[in-house]
Amino acid sequence: MPVRDEDLRKIANTIRTLSMDAVQKANSGHPGMPMGCADMGAVLWAEFLVHNPDDPGWINRDRFVLSAGHGSMLLYSLLHLSGYGLTLDDIRNFRQLHSRTPGHPEHYVTPGVETTTGPLGQGFANGVGMAMASKYLSDRFNANGPVIDHTVYAIVSDGDLMEGISSEAASLAGHLGLGSIVYLYDSNDISIEGSTGLTFSDDVKMRFEACKWHVQKIDGHNYAEIRAAITAAKNEKLRPSLIIARTRIAKGSPNLEGSEASHGAPLGEKEVGLAKRALECGDDCFAVAPGAYDIFERRRAELKKIYDSWKSEFASRVTGEIKKEWDAFFTRPDIDSLRPKTGFDTAKPMATRAASGVMLEKLFALVPGLIGGSADLGPSNKTFIKGYGESGAGKMGRNIHFGIREHAMGAIQNGMAYYGGIIPFSATFFVFMDYMRPPMRIAALGGLQTIYVFTHDSIFVGEDGPTHQPVEHLAAARAIPNLTVIRPADADETREAWLYALARNNGPTMLALTRQNLPPVCGEKAAGLWKGAYVVRDEPNPDIVVYSSGSEVALSLQAADLLKSRGIKARVVSFASWEIFDGQPEEYRNSILSHGKPAAVVEAGLSMGWERYAGSNALFITMKGFGTSAPAEVLAEEYGFTPEKVSAEIEAHVKKA
Amino acid sequence: MPVRDEDLRKIANTIRTLSMDAVQKANSGHPGMPMGCADMGAVLWAEFLVHNPDDPGWINRDRFVLSAGHGSMLLYSLLHLSGYGLTLDDIRNFRQLHSRTPGHPEHYVTPGVETTTGPLGQGFANGVGMAMASKYLSDRFNANGPVIDHTVYAIVSDGDLMEGISSEAASLAGHLGLGSIVYLYDSNDISIEGSTGLTFSDDVKMRFEACKWHVQKIDGHNYAEIRAAITAAKNEKLRPSLIIARTRIAKGSPNLEGSEASHGAPLGEKEVGLAKRALECGDDCFAVAPGAYDIFERRRAELKKIYDSWKSEFASRVTGEIKKEWDAFFTRPDIDSLRPKTGFDTAKPMATRAASGVMLEKLFALVPGLIGGSADLGPSNKTFIKGYGESGAGKMGRNIHFGIREHAMGAIQNGMAYYGGIIPFSATFFVFMDYMRPPMRIAALGGLQTIYVFTHDSIFVGEDGPTHQPVEHLAAARAIPNLTVIRPADADETREAWLYALARNNGPTMLALTRQNLPPVCGEKAAGLWKGAYVVRDEPNPDIVVYSSGSEVALSLQAADLLKSRGIKARVVSFASWEIFDGQPEEYRNSILSHGKPAAVVEAGLSMGWERYAGSNALFITMKGFGTSAPAEVLAEEYGFTPEKVSAEIEAHVKKA
Repeated sequence: MPVRDEDLRKIANTIRTLSMDAVQKANSGHPGMPMGCADMGAVLWAEFLVHNPDDPGWINRDRFVLSAGHGSMLLYSLLHLSGYGLTLDDIRNFRQLHSRTPGHPEHYVTPGVETTTGPLGQGFANGVGMAMASKYLSDRFNANGPVIDHTVYAIVSDGDLMEGISSEAASLAGHLGLGSIVYLYDSNDISIEGSTGLTFSDDVKMRFEACKWHVQKIDGHNYAEIRAAITAAKNEKLRPSLIIARTRIAKGSPNLEGSEASHGAPLGEKEVGLAKRALECGDDCFAVAPGAYDIFERRRAELKKIYDSWKSEFASRVTGEIKKEWDAFFTRPDIDSLRPKTGFDTAKPMATRAASGVMLEKLFALVPGLIGGSADLGPSNKTFIKGYGESGAGKMGRNIHFGIREHAMGAIQNGMAYYGGIIPFSATFFVFMDYMRPPMRIAALGGLQTIYVFTHDSIFVGEDGPTHQPVEHLAAARAIPNLTVIRPADADETREAWLYALARNNGPTMLALTRQNLPPVCGEKAAGLWKGAYVVRDEPNPDIVVYSSGSEVALSLQAADLLKSRGIKARVVSFASWEIFDGQPEEYRNSILSHGKPAAVVEAGLSMGWERYAGSNALFITMKGFGTSAPAEVLAEEYGFTPEKVSAEIEAHVKKA
Repeated sequence: MPVRDEDLRKIANTIRTLSMDAVQKANSGHPGMPMGCADMGAVLWAEFLVHNPDDPGWINRDRFVLSAGHGSMLLYSLLHLSGYGLTLDDIRNFRQLHSRTPGHPEHYVTPGVETTTGPLGQGFANGVGMAMASKYLSDRFNANGPVIDHTVYAIVSDGDLMEGISSEAASLAGHLGLGSIVYLYDSNDISIEGSTGLTFSDDVKMRFEACKWHVQKIDGHNYAEIRAAITAAKNEKLRPSLIIARTRIAKGSPNLEGSEASHGAPLGEKEVGLAKRALECGDDCFAVAPGAYDIFERRRAELKKIYDSWKSEFASRVTGEIKKEWDAFFTRPDIDSLRPKTGFDTAKPMATRAASGVMLEKLFALVPGLIGGSADLGPSNKTFIKGYGESGAGKMGRNIHFGIREHAMGAIQNGMAYYGGIIPFSATFFVFMDYMRPPMRIAALGGLQTIYVFTHDSIFVGEDGPTHQPVEHLAAARAIPNLTVIRPADADETREAWLYALARNNGPTMLALTRQNLPPVCGEKAAGLWKGAYVVRDEPNPDIVVYSSGSEVALSLQAADLLKSRGIKARVVSFASWEIFDGQPEEYRNSILSHGKPAAVVEAGLSMGWERYAGSNALFITMKGFGTSAPAEVLAEEYGFTPEKVSAEIEAHVKKA
């Protein structure tokens, strides 16, 4: 329902005063953006956004993404007014330890916050992921009438649009025809260094139209224009919508409106006072305009009706077989039931990427929420599963062609994980993890269940050369807190790795998989992967313990056989995952670690960090720097990854010890 | 000079046959792209590209960037024909160990290769960096007539344009009005997963026009159209140019032309034979069409005249004071002469980012080739130096406003480093290093002198919260081979870090700098930074050796004082750079390392990798996971980074040992 202008103004000015006061009290934060976007926030939340503060996880709610996360006070103000239980005391605690109002929105901290934003461009792409999830589920469940039919709103900033990730995500969103997207672009001409004119002269309308978006231009402080534009954008069902809203940063501040000085610092007590006077808001701190709560109370009553009506429509539309299918999306799979009855052919060498493809195909049949794809490397990553449909112009599909857009892929994946019902996976060459590290970090921070299929995981990529050969990437991936990195040693471990990834619902899991064939070496022992590391070849009282992962486990086993013939007893540990291992009981960990006895690490990556497990005096048969372009077998010789060279190095090390 | 169509066809078909044969012999590679771009390559190299194979470093040569680096055989074929000394034997050795023809072009391996490409989008942005360097130098030196006035050509692919980095770089190139850019877009409608129509429906012409580019569309196999388009693009001096060339991948292959099957695999002996017949090239392997060498010999004679004439114009135009200035760009600075005579005020606490700003200002006056800027965080990074001009619409400047485009910034920086004469620096918050990791890796791989100013280097960012607080970034940066990471402990070490970065010309250097003030603690000892680590507070026969970096050095010193009062002797090492330390003689390293005696690491980042220096039994007073939003002092308490807590932990550790 339209709200009167004077009421909208109350809301907007409440956002402004709460934002100014919270930033002032914290002596830190970003008042300019919430003040500039207050009018759009008021119209959107008071008239359009469909949600239910009593059921924040309602699947058919509209999503609101604050891509310009530094404007968190805009969101906190609206959550407070909307009834999410965020109190004025919470807002007084803005940016304080353990508060529910951190500096940037963190979805795992604050009810009603849909996404963790701040790093620019991420929210833009998260929203595209949400719209993709929504389209996928609506295609699947709307046969008897709409069940999933909501809008994905976002406020995006100049910074979001300068980041390349937004171009990637916009291109894909336009291609897929994601009509549920309605983005408001806070075009305020200001960035931290000054006018955006210093560095940004895109014709944004033309740029988005070139990517098949529906674009409108409005005055971001004119309620009627905001209302009309959102209405038109919602009515556009075949294209995503961008509303370019001219705004003034810090709107309402007599001296700082329109200035970059308002972006990232408190306005100052004096200016806050002047702004409150100019806005006719009274001098009180953390004051909510009289009547503002009433407006949102009325809105909640409207929303309750919409919600109740959806509930009853859902009950009538999602029944029988469809209900079973629905539940399969929204219930966690029983992992043991997913384990294939028959293993891999143990006689046949197989690349772990190929084993992953086989496993993924089995899982597709059992876990309907498992959807994803590759950044144009499906044939190499073995992630395209035939018979399950695919995305394309104007359509979503279970196999997603992300295009050569790794960064957006990662953030879209986060959006799908935020959405619910979906366990999203993505894939590319391991070396190109670098292109998508920012969203992986946010997935780890927020505990999102996302799965990364990174193939071609070492110098054994071969001829493509050092630009395509990861050497530091295992170390760099292991460095990300709460990211579980798994490098399976053969097909059987790859099966377990996939099951582990599906079981793990409190953070992202990454699989590092080989391009090259590997012999089967783990067999039934592969279940040990669930402990992160286990003895794959034992010797009583070994002369040395060899820690290996992935393709180097088979190599270590071959070396151990050679060593045995020379009277040296080597225990070999398949150490597929540091993070899983770290979570085991101390007793188990002690049974694996060598505790100062001779140890070696054999891994075709840098040694960094392995000292924690093998000790700093261990022998490191690892890469020392970048690789080079040559066939894989030649590189094995060049860098010492042959059974002969490994066994010779270990022998010398044991004799020296 | 225009070349006859039949001669161009000879060149193009030579590219095709060499590419097919090399890929076939290597049994690995990408024949489709070179065959599709052969016609454009022929026109460009036989008629337009101005260079001198006898002086590959000639500063005013045209640059040719193969952004679609997988098509390396296109470039190797043209380098062979042009006389760069790349022989047919080199080409027969395509993708073999230590060959000069690696799988993707590597500028440090092959003469005439301007950039290391392969990871998509990088070359696109490298070219923008070259054009920026060119514009900067031409603004500076063309007063007496053109000295720097060449073109930057590139061949870019669908994949390049899908990557967000190309949107970032295109936006900045259009904004700056880089008229020297002439990019040929190999629009072949094919990506690895199939038709680009699966995932890409941008109106590329409109998209680039929205970014202020001059755009033409042509048939990429029509010599007259290619010639006319390049001519028009060269004549466009105020805008970068994109030539959208419709091409057929694997042009000339009867069965694989137009198919994704030709992208990344040999065509097969049989198809190679069929293609050679269709192209009327004879059946020989590695055959150069009769007359092809003659065409390029004539071209070399033309180029020699252009080169000689430039040489004499240069001698007449760059004289006296201008010549001195020129030499200052193209001669390596004497580092000791750059060290300020007076140090920092040792009484005053100072953030290392602030010290960096002071130092950078001094260096700006002494090293004219030092140019760069920030991704819109100049006021925070302290990298904007007043009085030296700045970039803007249609203009370059010594202070570059990169905009919120970290990824392009890194790759543009590489382009400037490739160019010569420039020591480029860039800046952002340390946590956003993740956005620019791919070009940093390439700089490290290729040994480029680039400098990264990363401020806000720990949880002590404070209230902005975990999305803005690096914790894993020191580890992840240290993981990149040949990247020197320096985390100075105070203003004096920051001065030395800058001098080190300027001295280091065989790879990139990264400075991790604080947001918060630090007391001066190193004084004259700061020169020890050139050894990576040194004792900043000594104790004979210490009970413990404490390794620290950056802001935690002062903390460790305070803790050591507390420990002393409790009878515990702590030696404190300022360990600013692992990589510098690793380069020291063994004797020096041994004098610093504790060799099994009690040790502690105090660093507000993850401990990963520190075991190498401190031993795996050391005490790690480090971060265990992500941070949180709160004032810095509160976080110091929360995570144990106070003198009291550090000293208590160390005391307990010493007593346990």
